[in-house]
Parts: sequence; C-alpha cells; structure tokens
Amino acid sequence: MTQKIIDKQQVSNILDQYDYFIFDCDGVIWLGDHILPSVVETIDLLKKRGKKVIFVTNNSSKSRNDYLQKFNKIGIQGITKDEVFGSSYASAVYINKIMKLPTDKKVWVLGESGIEQELHDLGYETLGGTDPSLSAEGAGASDDHPLLKNLDDSVGAVVTGLTSKLNYLKLCITLQYLLKDNKSVPFIATNIDSTFPSHGKLLIGAGSIIQAVSYASGRTPDAICGKPNQSMMNTIKAENPDLQKTPSRGLMVGDRLNTDIQFGLQGGLDTLLVLTGIETENSVQSVDMTAAPTYYADKLGDLYELLDHN
Amino acid sequence: MTQKIIDKQQVSNILDQYDYFIFDCDGVIWLGDHILPSVVETIDLLKKRGKKVIFVTNNSSKSRNDYLQKFNKIGIQGITKDEVFGSSYASAVYINKIMKLPTDKKVWVLGESGIEQELHDLGYETLGGTDPSLSAEGAGASDDHPLLKNLDDSVGAVVTGLTSKLNYLKLCITLQYLLKDNKSVPFIATNIDSTFPSHGKLLIGAGSIIQAVSYASGRTPDAICGKPNQSMMNTIKAENPDLQKTPSRGLMVGDRLNTDIQFGLQGGLDTLLVLTGIETENSVQSVDMTAAPTYYADKLGDLYELLDHN
Repeated sequence: MTQKIIDKQQVSNILDQYDYFIFDCDGVIWLGDHILPSVVETIDLLKKRGKKVIFVTNNSSKSRNDYLQKFNKIGIQGITKDEVFGSSYASAVYINKIMKLPTDKKVWVLGESGIEQELHDLGYETLGGTDPSLSAEGAGASDDHPLLKNLDDSVGAVVTGLTSKLNYLKLCITLQYLLKDNKSVPFIATNIDSTFPSHGKLLIGAGSIIQAVSYASGRTPDAICGKPNQSMMNTIKAENPDLQKTPSRGLMVGDRLNTDIQFGLQGGLDTLLVLTGIETENSVQSVDMTAAPTYYADKLGDLYELLDHN
Repeated sequence: MTQKIIDKQQVSNILDQYDYFIFDCDGVIWLGDHILPSVVETIDLLKKRGKKVIFVTNNSSKSRNDYLQKFNKIGIQGITKDEVFGSSYASAVYINKIMKLPTDKKVWVLGESGIEQELHDLGYETLGGTDPSLSAEGAGASDDHPLLKNLDDSVGAVVTGLTSKLNYLKLCITLQYLLKDNKSVPFIATNIDSTFPSHGKLLIGAGSIIQAVSYASGRTPDAICGKPNQSMMNTIKAENPDLQKTPSRGLMVGDRLNTDIQFGLQGGLDTLLVLTGIETENSVQSVDMTAAPTYYADKLGDLYELLDHN
C-alpha cells in the first residue's frame, strides 16, 4: 500500500532510510523552464545531510554539460557532471563500455547535439545528427544526397533519439545503415517515450521516430538506454558501487508510473511518485499493486516543507 | 500448384478465361521511368480483345490525372481515368462513399499532392499536405506554429501517406488531430508499405511514417486503402459490377506476393506473378500454398510474345 508523505516523521524516516536520491527532472525538478516550489531547498537539505543526489532524464537533446548549465540557470547550484545521467550519456556509455566499440569506428546519429557531444567526449566521430547539409530545405526530398548514396563503412553503431529537425532524408539514411551488412550494425535507442510533452501539448517523442525506422528496417533496437530500461540504472550503479551492493538504500523519485517508478522498481530501489507532472491521486489509487510506488507526495518540495520549514 | 506461362496455348486459355486484367504498375508495367518490354503491345492486345484493363498502385504521391500523364509519357496511350486506381484516389473515395464525410468538413493531409487533388475533386478542402508554410526550413522545430497551436474544428478526417517532404512539425500537427476530441477523428492510411523502392535503394515507405503517428497517438488506422487491403478492391468492384458478380473472371497481375497477389486472392480473383520486380523464381517455389499465385511469368510482355508475336 502506497504511503502518502504528509508529516515530519515520515520525512525523517526517509532521510534515515536512504543514501541515494535519484530524480527524474521534468515534472519533478522543473516544468519546462520553471523550477517547482521548494525544490532548491530540498536538494540543499539532502546534500547537507550527506546524501548522494542523481538526476536522470530521457531527453537526449542535451548533453550532461548542457544540463549543468540548465541547473545553474534554473537556480540549482553546484551540481556536478557525475550527478547527471541523460539518455544521450547512457547511450554513449553503452556503446563504449557494453558494446566496446573501438573509437576508430564512427557512429551514425539520428538525433541532436546531446548525443553527438557525449559520443565525442568518449572519442567517437559522429555522422548525421546536426550536420547542416542534412537539414537544408529541399534535402528532405533528395534521393541522390551523397550521404544516402555513399554509406560510410566505418560506421559501427546507429543511435536514434528525439530530434525536432527530423526530415525524410535523415530517416532514409538511418534506414540504409540499419539495413547495411545484413542488418548487423548495432541499433541503439536513447529512449522509447512515444510523446514529448511541451507547453501543454504532446509532441512526437523519440519512440515514435524510432518506430518509423524500426518498421522500415524490420528491426527492433538492440538496446534502449532510457528509463525504464535498466541500461541507465546499470550505468548509475557501476559509478556508485554502494548503490550496486544495496539498491534498497536508493529512492527513485519521478512523476510517471510507467517510466520513472518502473525504472526504480526494476532496479530494486524504493520509489516516490510526485504529482507535479503526469500522474494524479487517481492514478495512484488505481495502479496495479506490483507497479505501485513506495510513497507518493503532492510535490518533491514537501520533503523540505514538512520538515518544519514552512 | 502455380503454373508457369511458357506457351501460346496457356496465353490463349488466359485470354478466354478472364475479362478483367488488373495490373500493379511499378515492377509490372514500368520500373521507375522505364517501361518494361512488350508491355505496350500486351495492353494493346488485351484492349483489342475487348478486355477491361485496370491499373492499381499504392503510391499516393500522384493523383489519377498525374498517372494518366505518366502513362502517356511512358508510351501507353489512351488510358482513361476510370482505368486507374491509386491509393490516393481510394482514400478519397473511402472518405466520400464509405465514411460519407460531408463536403463542408476539411481533411488534414500528411502526404503529397496526389491525395490533395483527389480530395479536391470530390469537393473537400484540405489542410496540411503541400502547404509551403509547413515545409519552410526551421518550421520543423517550431512548437508555436499557428497550425500546431490552433487546430481547425472542421477537420473531419486525417489522411496519412508517403511524403518525402516529411518534417517534425507535420508529424506533430498530425498527432494533434489524431488526439483531438478524444481520438475520434477518423484516421485513414493510404497504404502501409514499410519501404519505398527507388533507384535500387529502399527508402522510408508510407507505412513507416504512419507507424510514427500511430505509436505517438496510441491509435491504429481506421482504414488502410492500399493493397492488399480490400478497400481499393471494393472500390474497383463498385465501379465494375460484372467483376463484383463474378470475381473469378478477373486476373490480378503483380510483382509482390504479400501485396499484389494477396490483394487478388482476397478479392476472389485469379493471380499472375511476374518476375520483373521484387520476387524471384525461388520465392514462387517457397511460398505457402494458400498464398501462391495461379500463374507466374518471367514478364508481363510474355503474354504478347508467346502469342506468336516474337
């Protein structure tokens, strides 16, 4: 039975019970460019108590460096690179550590600069991505674009994620690499969220773009690096050996049952659902017991406010 | 057991047995812009014998008028509009005759001018499609485009098909209409071919584009108008009552087992597979008996050549 966080004692127990606090960002820490109430104070409180805070996001458009800038801009100071895990970083780590792709191989990117930067940081050259020659007006229609005609034999992986600069040409070249060498080039998805919430609308998510090249090639991704898939959790654990040993000392905080809470549950962590994003009190009541969070709260900032700070 | 057409007697029997000859175009009549050998003569022969010839294509980028121009240009003269069925026309007929959408309703189009023209011919106003404001460079990224922000309440159907001018904005607006009014606006797919063969490459097909908006919206198309779906066959039969009554007097000629031959089989017609497109002698030998064509031939032009014309 999911417990609602409503008093100081519950917060004290949580502070005693967990060493690692892993946060989804959008809908938990911020909504678009607006930070949610008492979040700065909550993060500060946790850090003062010696807790390890980690931020995870499925949005692959930004690199970890981009996210550090966003944290600063939004008013959360002092976050370091090792505290941020995006699906772009998780994808680059997957290619480097799990696939062990030699760095003289290139990576074809259907996505934005976040993926490119993380791959460059690990020593890979990328093709596609933000290459302006692929975005020029009219390029979408051209079936004799040099990049479509002449595939690069040194491409050793294809990474697919969200891009608002999507066009037909980029999809078609991605398809060529997925079909190449009897479909043997590894196919990595940053995440498979079907939609991308923005300004109160649901836009096309990474997963829907990936569906297009997946259906065309007759392939499903060899790895999905975003939540709830455990690739990203395994990366976090690999860099935090104490969490690896005792996942129950970790609390995953998120606003979506089917990604964030699943991500925590599958990783063996306890979970806290906040109602500042996608889910409502109603969804907590109706969720299947096996998928229910350990706790829920109206907002993340309640941890700070309930601890006698309001 | 599929019979290979190799002699005059077999061709004579075929000419006796069938009144309607329905042809897929690409891989049967032409390959891209090149007409296949003895096709002009075969069509001419059939017409002289009083046969009804009908051309069907899943390619929705062209209207029937566009196809008449292509037939002329490629050297097949005298084809009339009632002899051509494209998935763009089939989609327009579906909206008009089956859905009975009033003509004061508009249709949102994710596709090219073929769909627009066929809908205009039936009295509908279209939105989207080739609207240049949706294709401008940079439009793909804009989540405050007026067409994304302000949906048109008079849109009564969404038609989705192939477009090489695809971008993120077009996908996102299409998604808004598919989600609108509790997902109640009918969702029509011209066809669901996963790929589009062009110049020896497989490019992204209509079906792969449709997968993206289908996955994002959590909907599957309410109707698929291309082969092998029977919507197009039913439209052909509605305009050819004798074929309706006796489908076994019709012969469907195609180059793909899973679309053309299925299309004929499901419509109760006999079928002829030609080996000038996708399939090989090998695929004929290995196909399941229930999906096998009645006949196969090296090429369509063999009907003419075997009848003592070579």
